[in-house]
Amino acid sequence: MTITITAFERSPDGGMGLARDTRVRWALEEVGQPYDVRLVSFAAMKEPAHLAVHPFGQIPTYEDGGLAIFETGAIVFHIATQHAGLLPHDPDPRARAITWMFAALNTVEPPILDLTVVKIIEGDKPWAAERLPLVKERIRDRLDRLSARLGDAEWLDGAFSAGDLLMVSVLLRSRMSGILDEYPNLAAYVARGEARPAYQRAFAAQLAVNAPTA
Amino acid sequence: MTITITAFERSPDGGMGLARDTRVRWALEEVGQPYDVRLVSFAAMKEPAHLAVHPFGQIPTYEDGGLAIFETGAIVFHIATQHAGLLPHDPDPRARAITWMFAALNTVEPPILDLTVVKIIEGDKPWAAERLPLVKERIRDRLDRLSARLGDAEWLDGAFSAGDLLMVSVLLRSRMSGILDEYPNLAAYVARGEARPAYQRAFAAQLAVNAPTA
Repeated sequence: MTITITAFERSPDGGMGLARDTRVRWALEEVGQPYDVRLVSFAAMKEPAHLAVHPFGQIPTYEDGGLAIFETGAIVFHIATQHAGLLPHDPDPRARAITWMFAALNTVEPPILDLTVVKIIEGDKPWAAERLPLVKERIRDRLDRLSARLGDAEWLDGAFSAGDLLMVSVLLRSRMSGILDEYPNLAAYVARGEARPAYQRAFAAQLAVNAPTA
Repeated sequence: MTITITAFERSPDGGMGLARDTRVRWALEEVGQPYDVRLVSFAAMKEPAHLAVHPFGQIPTYEDGGLAIFETGAIVFHIATQHAGLLPHDPDPRARAITWMFAALNTVEPPILDLTVVKIIEGDKPWAAERLPLVKERIRDRLDRLSARLGDAEWLDGAFSAGDLLMVSVLLRSRMSGILDEYPNLAAYVARGEARPAYQRAFAAQLAVNAPTA
């Protein structure tokens, strides 16, 4: 059986690695699983063939034998349950690592994604400039707490886990706005994530698809 | 060992059951586990004792013996792994049910929560009225797809699962805006969730805390 994931035919970020297939590539690299990629255009994402696998018409998806799933968090979790390396075996540390997976996607990412709304989706609206600081304050509310919890630890709860993989990926989306660098320990945490060989391979793989040809 | 969760001392919704402890109560009722509740004031949520359990200073939390976790999705998932009744045993249906858990919290809930931003948090801003239809369109983008996928099925993927528990809970937060009722099959799906005895018990338990005294 071969694992097949989907990714943008051309990512809107031009290869910065912020599209969600990078998270799945990273997880697969951490556990040493080879995978195929099927590239999907924006038009094809809304066609019945893709909607059959991803009901919301997005990427990434994950197919392996008879299983087809969508939703980045679920895919990363599935990979983490199928292969060693992304979740602790002991029940309590495992539950805490899973907690950080949900916290990354559900508590930290939503305010960060609002940057896309205020800057791009509603970027031409008359209120965009005045809303931006409000959006940033809501991000800081979360990062203040996250920074306090992380302190000078290397990872969120003991060894690197799928919780860190998702949290680093989420925080990366706040970097361009300058907010991440307001928190030196979070910026260093993200840098530790990016320095992992598995991340490097995942980033290079998405870049090979998305980088503008020189 | 006794399971102890936290909930608002007084929920901002006045007992409509939209606070996230209701989701955890519902999961515990589905699997037949008794639990204690520790009520927390808004001030106490930001104190060190609570932040030690919930680094973002929110509710609910879940404590059982030596384990202390936070984040509703993680708590519901933990309950579902400890007790039968919320996730299929077979690996593929189980992975699909978990997919719906993440989809509820990560793809469907964020645009719905934006209703709170536009109506309440930024309700006094001059752009609120003009932004509201944009926010509603982003919700409809998701519910169009969800409605198409659900069709006339009873639940999202076979038997009722933790994925349905979270999706119904998320959709409930769109009802007051009128959007849910634009989708008769989703409204009926939510009604099926609310009709479950476990939901009824969970709702009554939170209402007993939050209902204004007559």
